[in-house]
Amino acid sequence: MKRAQRACIITQILTENPNKDYPLAYFADRFGCAKSSVSEDLQIVRQAVEDAGLGYVETTAGAKGGVRYVPYISKEESSEELKRFGNMLAQPDRSIGSGFIYTTDLMSDPVFVTLAARVFARHFAATEADAVVTVETKGIGVAMMTARFLNLPLVVVRREAKVSDGSTISINFFSGSADRIQKMSLSKRAIKPGCRAIIIDDFMRGGGSVKGMQDMLAEFDARTVGVGVVIVAGKDEQKKIGSYFPIFHYDDGGDVCKVSVNPELII
Amino acid sequence: MKRAQRACIITQILTENPNKDYPLAYFADRFGCAKSSVSEDLQIVRQAVEDAGLGYVETTAGAKGGVRYVPYISKEESSEELKRFGNMLAQPDRSIGSGFIYTTDLMSDPVFVTLAARVFARHFAATEADAVVTVETKGIGVAMMTARFLNLPLVVVRREAKVSDGSTISINFFSGSADRIQKMSLSKRAIKPGCRAIIIDDFMRGGGSVKGMQDMLAEFDARTVGVGVVIVAGKDEQKKIGSYFPIFHYDDGGDVCKVSVNPELII
Repeated sequence: MKRAQRACIITQILTENPNKDYPLAYFADRFGCAKSSVSEDLQIVRQAVEDAGLGYVETTAGAKGGVRYVPYISKEESSEELKRFGNMLAQPDRSIGSGFIYTTDLMSDPVFVTLAARVFARHFAATEADAVVTVETKGIGVAMMTARFLNLPLVVVRREAKVSDGSTISINFFSGSADRIQKMSLSKRAIKPGCRAIIIDDFMRGGGSVKGMQDMLAEFDARTVGVGVVIVAGKDEQKKIGSYFPIFHYDDGGDVCKVSVNPELII
Repeated sequence: MKRAQRACIITQILTENPNKDYPLAYFADRFGCAKSSVSEDLQIVRQAVEDAGLGYVETTAGAKGGVRYVPYISKEESSEELKRFGNMLAQPDRSIGSGFIYTTDLMSDPVFVTLAARVFARHFAATEADAVVTVETKGIGVAMMTARFLNLPLVVVRREAKVSDGSTISINFFSGSADRIQKMSLSKRAIKPGCRAIIIDDFMRGGGSVKGMQDMLAEFDARTVGVGVVIVAGKDEQKKIGSYFPIFHYDDGGDVCKVSVNPELII
């Protein structure tokens, strides 16, 4: 088999399995060639993946040395798309009243979801997290794709316990949007003690449900190592939680509904 | 830029954007080379993608002629993984009683979800569907990934209408599992008349919620062109719906909980 052929196969397998480690021996066995040849193939793969602008190839050293594909998106690649989606979100017919906007279509649009997840995967790549956590329903798509890019399990907190969850832990939290106490539940089997979790949600106003998830994680002796929110409404100082990473800001004060992209993410 | 380099870049871009059409001119412009060179690069890409066993590259002819990556999984590639997951599902500690099994972890495990979605994407590739439809909550991950592989929008039917859905259409359906009438709602903006939809769900016993989704689609003058279910429990003749495509069969009759893989999917 020729070098170009091997390099393409490696590119395909790595891309389809983000953040999964492949020892060089895996490809050497598959191609029936020397590890040194795979090493040389990887030079081509590494450069090509960098040129494509959607991720990079990381090499791990040592006896078990191997490679992994890390999804990534540069400001240059994401800028235009994020601005385009920002404009879509700002369309007047998305306004539902009471400070809500219709985002259901975008939150389940694979193109939007994949872009948002790629942004989160880049931002939280160094957290050494063990899991991605979200609360049903609208954020599940983005959270699932983020989990796939980071090669982590996803944990979905329920609003209401289901019979198929087995025994659960529940907590109450104050939802500013709903202006009342709400409940969330999680199966006792869902999280192991000591787990490091990234929380992903689609929308945040007061921060009540993110705070609820943090409290829930604390019940499991787990730790929040990052919070990513697709759309944050209102001002920072009115939030119940400290640090979080938004993709869009939504300002519904005044006459016009204004959506802006997190300035860290655009050029 | 050398051929191997270009072929790898094409492989990466196609793989990251399943079922999206790329005209040859896109790559010719990107690389600053002739379309005929891209054509030759594609020979390498096509063969490599086939060898990797996760999809194939389809060429569309004509003036707008281009290429797309179609995720696919052969029986050879899927057999072992499906059997492994089947064994996991059959573990006695997953039994919750009343004929339910704990699947929450698997339904949000990116590896399981991606495999199931790849199986569905292969099976429903020829349906010319416009959308993937599911009902919250556990099936959303698989449905989202199926939508991504097929490059289709996902529509999530809610159990309960939310303020952010705007105006909705609701229907009642009989859930055999819950042994009572339940409700599902969908935003009026969510589906266009004439839409061809693939229904994806995580679990089916009586078929009530799939039947509910079909009725819901009919309310929108949309059509069901396929039904994919990850786990089907019980016998075929007891279902409320006609044709469906399962990945696993779950038999909770008798002493042992038995899980088997759809024989069409294994060798």
